[in-house]
Amino acid sequence: MRVHIVHAHPEPLSFSASMFRVAGEVLRSAGHFVQDSDLYAMNFDPVASSDDFSKRADSGYLVYALEQRHGFKHGGLAVGIKTEIEKLLAADLLILNFPIFWFSAPAILKGWIDRVLLSGLCYGGKRFYDRGGLAGKKAWITATLGGRPHMFGDNAVHGQLNDMLRHLLRGTLAYVGFDVLEPFYAYHVPYISTEARSKLLEEFREALITIEKRASLPSFSLDDFDEQFYPLPGR
Amino acid sequence: MRVHIVHAHPEPLSFSASMFRVAGEVLRSAGHFVQDSDLYAMNFDPVASSDDFSKRADSGYLVYALEQRHGFKHGGLAVGIKTEIEKLLAADLLILNFPIFWFSAPAILKGWIDRVLLSGLCYGGKRFYDRGGLAGKKAWITATLGGRPHMFGDNAVHGQLNDMLRHLLRGTLAYVGFDVLEPFYAYHVPYISTEARSKLLEEFREALITIEKRASLPSFSLDDFDEQFYPLPGR
Repeated sequence: MRVHIVHAHPEPLSFSASMFRVAGEVLRSAGHFVQDSDLYAMNFDPVASSDDFSKRADSGYLVYALEQRHGFKHGGLAVGIKTEIEKLLAADLLILNFPIFWFSAPAILKGWIDRVLLSGLCYGGKRFYDRGGLAGKKAWITATLGGRPHMFGDNAVHGQLNDMLRHLLRGTLAYVGFDVLEPFYAYHVPYISTEARSKLLEEFREALITIEKRASLPSFSLDDFDEQFYPLPGR
Repeated sequence: MRVHIVHAHPEPLSFSASMFRVAGEVLRSAGHFVQDSDLYAMNFDPVASSDDFSKRADSGYLVYALEQRHGFKHGGLAVGIKTEIEKLLAADLLILNFPIFWFSAPAILKGWIDRVLLSGLCYGGKRFYDRGGLAGKKAWITATLGGRPHMFGDNAVHGQLNDMLRHLLRGTLAYVGFDVLEPFYAYHVPYISTEARSKLLEEFREALITIEKRASLPSFSLDDFDEQFYPLPGR
């Protein structure tokens, strides 16, 4: 399998950074081809702007998604974006590894999503969910958080964690066509013992070794909707 | 009322930018005190990093939230963060005005959230939801999107839009204690006529004029949970 790991943590000694390194090691040892993007180390610019396009479809008025389409088709995308797209397209599995900030990705990773998941390539017009541009690939969120497992669930204080992350799991990854694997959540990381961290890292190794058998989250199909995305009767 | 409008769109001629200007005009005309943060115009840096702290609690290992607490207590927060905190604390109402990118905020605004909603000030330990540090203030999301209204709802292709934005509405704004107002969503903006845009802007003016009567989303109380955030029996 070909894998692209995108990692976004500001502290190289963090548990999240350990997960990033372990993921690369375990997957390479298992014979997979791994490329990565360590966004903080790369000083990745997360701000979507007109600077991303050296040639513009409309130089007087920026519609970011339309310029993405134009740039992908006619050239002129910033080099940093093109490099990331090549790694993304080469991969059968995309791993997003990050600490959960505000029930979402850190801004540097949100900006990778904003800038790299190009309109026209990854989605566009009527191509999303099972018709998205990255259909056939898998995506996996591996994340650390401060909260404890009992704080998430139907009657728990924060509800389901997957519901909090719906914008990523469904609205981003499933949207562009990925088969979205069950996330790996490392709970309560800042507060647990070294022993508990080692145990978590062992669980993560096991998840990596068995990645090809990992369950997927429910998927979304456009088959139940008409061309204008109204629900089809009886579906 | 004192208002802080945070705006994040890369195109000054966009509909979102018109909403930003109209919000300031209408609220000032109605006698409110308005401060704003136009993040693209300010060239706001969205990347949470060790550069945010001139004095560190632990200079060898960055736990971002712990350095936020330390910086807030002992000084040493980056100037750009302090300025934003002053505007935030002065406000009775925070407005986040942005185009929806990936069912969330653009990275530049996500970074404002990551860097400005300080641990220790806005939340921390057992202070969140109705016990959050910003309790007593209101927050309002005013956003543009490409999707059409019928694409959102219980049986619609994307489910409820408020569920997609749960990480912002609940996981961020309600989390720090805000009373979260019903969002104003300007649908299908890139594709509608000038007349339809004018009509939308009129609706937005009306929403601004009647802002003090605007309904809130359901709130979240820690009263139903014990000190460890387990649900209390019978609640």
